[in-house]
Amino acid sequence: MNSAPANSFSGVFPIAPTPFTESGEIDLHGQRRVLDCMIDQGVDGICILANYSEQFLLTDAERDTLAELCLSHVAGRAPVIVTCSHFSTRIAAERARKAASAGAAMLMLMPPYHGSGLRADEKGMLEHFAHVADAARLPIMIQDAPLSGVNLSVPFLVRLAREVPAVRYFKVEVQGAAAKLRGLIEAGGDSIAGPFDGEESITLMADLDAGATGTMPSAMLPDLIKPVLEHHRAGRRQEAAAAYASILPLINFENRQCGLRATKTVMREGGVIGSDAVRHPLEPLHPATLKGLLELAAAVDPLALRWGR
Amino acid sequence: MNSAPANSFSGVFPIAPTPFTESGEIDLHGQRRVLDCMIDQGVDGICILANYSEQFLLTDAERDTLAELCLSHVAGRAPVIVTCSHFSTRIAAERARKAASAGAAMLMLMPPYHGSGLRADEKGMLEHFAHVADAARLPIMIQDAPLSGVNLSVPFLVRLAREVPAVRYFKVEVQGAAAKLRGLIEAGGDSIAGPFDGEESITLMADLDAGATGTMPSAMLPDLIKPVLEHHRAGRRQEAAAAYASILPLINFENRQCGLRATKTVMREGGVIGSDAVRHPLEPLHPATLKGLLELAAAVDPLALRWGR
Amino acid sequence: MNSAPANSFSGVFPIAPTPFTESGEIDLHGQRRVLDCMIDQGVDGICILANYSEQFLLTDAERDTLAELCLSHVAGRAPVIVTCSHFSTRIAAERARKAASAGAAMLMLMPPYHGSGLRADEKGMLEHFAHVADAARLPIMIQDAPLSGVNLSVPFLVRLAREVPAVRYFKVEVQGAAAKLRGLIEAGGDSIAGPFDGEESITLMADLDAGATGTMPSAMLPDLIKPVLEHHRAGRRQEAAAAYASILPLINFENRQCGLRATKTVMREGGVIGSDAVRHPLEPLHPATLKGLLELAAAVDPLALRWGR
Amino acid sequence: MNSAPANSFSGVFPIAPTPFTESGEIDLHGQRRVLDCMIDQGVDGICILANYSEQFLLTDAERDTLAELCLSHVAGRAPVIVTCSHFSTRIAAERARKAASAGAAMLMLMPPYHGSGLRADEKGMLEHFAHVADAARLPIMIQDAPLSGVNLSVPFLVRLAREVPAVRYFKVEVQGAAAKLRGLIEAGGDSIAGPFDGEESITLMADLDAGATGTMPSAMLPDLIKPVLEHHRAGRRQEAAAAYASILPLINFENRQCGLRATKTVMREGGVIGSDAVRHPLEPLHPATLKGLLELAAAVDPLALRWGR
Repeated sequence: MNSAPANSFSGVFPIAPTPFTESGEIDLHGQRRVLDCMIDQGVDGICILANYSEQFLLTDAERDTLAELCLSHVAGRAPVIVTCSHFSTRIAAERARKAASAGAAMLMLMPPYHGSGLRADEKGMLEHFAHVADAARLPIMIQDAPLSGVNLSVPFLVRLAREVPAVRYFKVEVQGAAAKLRGLIEAGGDSIAGPFDGEESITLMADLDAGATGTMPSAMLPDLIKPVLEHHRAGRRQEAAAAYASILPLINFENRQCGLRATKTVMREGGVIGSDAVRHPLEPLHPATLKGLLELAAAVDPLALRWGR
Repeated sequence: MNSAPANSFSGVFPIAPTPFTESGEIDLHGQRRVLDCMIDQGVDGICILANYSEQFLLTDAERDTLAELCLSHVAGRAPVIVTCSHFSTRIAAERARKAASAGAAMLMLMPPYHGSGLRADEKGMLEHFAHVADAARLPIMIQDAPLSGVNLSVPFLVRLAREVPAVRYFKVEVQGAAAKLRGLIEAGGDSIAGPFDGEESITLMADLDAGATGTMPSAMLPDLIKPVLEHHRAGRRQEAAAAYASILPLINFENRQCGLRATKTVMREGGVIGSDAVRHPLEPLHPATLKGLLELAAAVDPLALRWGR
Repeated sequence: MNSAPANSFSGVFPIAPTPFTESGEIDLHGQRRVLDCMIDQGVDGICILANYSEQFLLTDAERDTLAELCLSHVAGRAPVIVTCSHFSTRIAAERARKAASAGAAMLMLMPPYHGSGLRADEKGMLEHFAHVADAARLPIMIQDAPLSGVNLSVPFLVRLAREVPAVRYFKVEVQGAAAKLRGLIEAGGDSIAGPFDGEESITLMADLDAGATGTMPSAMLPDLIKPVLEHHRAGRRQEAAAAYASILPLINFENRQCGLRATKTVMREGGVIGSDAVRHPLEPLHPATLKGLLELAAAVDPLALRWGR
Repeated sequence: MNSAPANSFSGVFPIAPTPFTESGEIDLHGQRRVLDCMIDQGVDGICILANYSEQFLLTDAERDTLAELCLSHVAGRAPVIVTCSHFSTRIAAERARKAASAGAAMLMLMPPYHGSGLRADEKGMLEHFAHVADAARLPIMIQDAPLSGVNLSVPFLVRLAREVPAVRYFKVEVQGAAAKLRGLIEAGGDSIAGPFDGEESITLMADLDAGATGTMPSAMLPDLIKPVLEHHRAGRRQEAAAAYASILPLINFENRQCGLRATKTVMREGGVIGSDAVRHPLEPLHPATLKGLLELAAAVDPLALRWGR
């Protein structure tokens, strides 16, 4: 098992959803309540402006507003990871610079991509991350997710970690994540400070067994995910497995039927936010799906379902 | 909820794996044992030559051998669905014709695809399925899976069911499967005799709630999946959910970490077959993954883990 | 052949490149010179903020600056099409509204897309375009390009034109463009005001034969493309073919070896702009490619190669 | 410029189409005539069972029949390259073994792929090609084409050439082919015996300038492509460019409007074969496209247009 450096980040770092009003404006008040709820969930850190924050449905100005609001409102209560992905190296670096100034603890980026065809080769990706690293002087988490359409091989990830020392964290959320994390830890050694998984923690037990030291789920039930990591870290693997099994039906339903909408719906039901609206062309949950989600959530009763009641 | 026609197929129709010897030959003896084990699992039917049968790693001659062996060995003990997918309409139809002659109960096909670029438009797909239907005079199950790279919209599936009456079954195994099944049942009415799901039954509870009348998992644990459908059909939804929750950790591990190799490994461990070899470039399971799989399997003890001991 | 309505747009509508300084800033002076050069090329209209304008490498603020600068600088000398594509319907509509206020003659949009997975279904796309149309009250050109990763069928495009009357123009730049344009014109009739092609006009002769009334090439040689359309429209098909054949080696080299960098390099060589820099992770042309491009350009001597000398 | 080893293959190696009768059977008599016509075209070699031979629409038995027929009928009049691509390493190796026994001069393979998701990593691809090389003891040409959906980087291709010595030829037919060939020749040195292009020779001049020593077009007009290579090799670059410009309108039309159907239609018109039928779901050319093709072909009058008259 991987033993993370003393000063490294580990644990549960959920993604903050971006709440909207029914008319589609960002709900700034709701955003603050989302963050307060997450602190109360006992998270080890918070990631903002990620895919589950609907980053692809925000203007640049809205991004800036959200980054400033989140960092000032969290105010050191938890480390904040700011997602800075952009196809343009210049723009990603500028986002990184702003995030660093505003107090981010870490940056998260996907490799550069746009649409179904525009990608960079390995040389271009190395330059991209090196340029961002120079701009921000913060640790960087590489997000290895299918949305980018980029296949990041283990040898390339290790090379990246070695050539760009700021790159120390890796969120792996692809098919066979546990095997990839295992390969990454074996090949990368000390240059891999934080092997994480993501994707709603749908592969968490396998990834912890493979050596993952952190997970980036949604903000729907991090209070119930955290014990899994704690048991596992303490060597209580059966307790970890049992804790995970108890929440797996809900996570599975989130992962396959709801996506980013699950957290919003649970948080609305729990009085955290006033609306679970998503921006078009994303569609609201079908009433039957919503009912199924809340039924499964009620069975395990995460904090988000009752925080604001 | 959907009420299937009296004479329609419903229930658990797992995919038979294709066992190989360590040197890569088809293990015909093992294939018969796989089928016998599946009968003993109480399956409602058997699907052969599907993706989890490694159909993309077989020669045409091996396909013919397997189809004949399987149909003659099952010999009516369960209905057999024969997968006939091919990019060529002519070849798919010829496969269908052979399957019908040999005693298949149903055909399963993906829409025509090859590689990353060759696909047919909706007119071409309609002609493809119509031609296969003419050749075989058997009910057809459309497999709606990401591997084909074809996005099959609900309106098109309904049109297909109406214009090609043999097309009556639909195995939906895409993101948001339950919502798609629900939409298909609503829009298609009586022309949808069998809304199924697939993908190791990883979305089974949601799909049953949406109206699915059958599921096509792997052959790893159909004996433990069947009670979920039986409870659900009898209106015992909480019992169904509990039965499903108990096997979800294993199904999730199969779905995300192992793929088609899980069934082979469990069947080898259970003495059903002599080897869990897959054909290159597929790779064997990492020893740590194999260990994790068998641990989860042991906890629920499916028949395949002990059938041949 | 298609006869376009009297007041419709037709002819050559090239894309304005976005010039950068060597240090990566937008070159506003150069942008004005690009537009002046395009007017002198005799273009029938100008498209801005398109893919060949590197729209995927610009901030929102830079987009706004460019849209205002271009519309005020062109000042009615030619109709200007403003590209407004965004995955978010709300943001695309806001871009459209701003473009309309600033004097755009038309809007161009791809269907909503993000990365390799996020797309909308047909219902979602219809709503997307309808919402944009409501926001802007301008004619809309649908861009049917591989970059979006969306397969737009002819029946859907016709449905879109009928249900959203503002949608009257279609830039088809996919494999088999001529056949698709022919099918679109046959099925769509009067609702198709402007069947265009794009992609550097690499399929222009075939598309004109199929009924295209306009083309959207780069700004490298529209002065040499325009005679092809004029000859063709006047029934001088052999002269059109000869004019096209004479520029095809250059267009082919642009299309396959250079992409959007070709126009910038030719314009820099011709003194229109001071640098042919593109933004990272796009890479500059290899010196040998640059040499090959300028050699082919010199052979046909488009205005852009000498405008500023 | 690259100087190929003395005994290496270079020049024009077109793909033999597979003729079908109107009812869809392979036309064996026509196949022999296709090969005789190709010999008369003066080709330097012939490639069979490639994508433009509709390999994805043939049964294994038809492949065997065609390989035997072609090799015995050509009978040493030209070297024959046999395409052996299959997702299964075992099956690709068996195809290679058969081809070697029957007299093939070289093998051509794409990396393993199936559908939109199944691919191998670099280790798996190396093993795949190494296993095929062991089975056949023939030089291997790697086909680098978008159909496979595999991105083959220059460093990986060079590594492949060094670790699997049989791999000496590379057919590059991706976006930016000339730049990739240039990079491959620079990085690979002597291990790259044959840098070829493909895709109907649509990028031939740029690729020759980059150092390509061969091209793999269709069999529509190799007699008119060959002078381009001969002029270029003799240092008559302007004559090469002029010869290429004269046939570019036809090649462009083939490449963008017709695909593999162009050769069949021209050969039928020229009396080489009796039908230009393709197998469903491929569709016949639209009459207007067919007319455009034959008009452009008539203007340059390749041998295939008159060989059998």
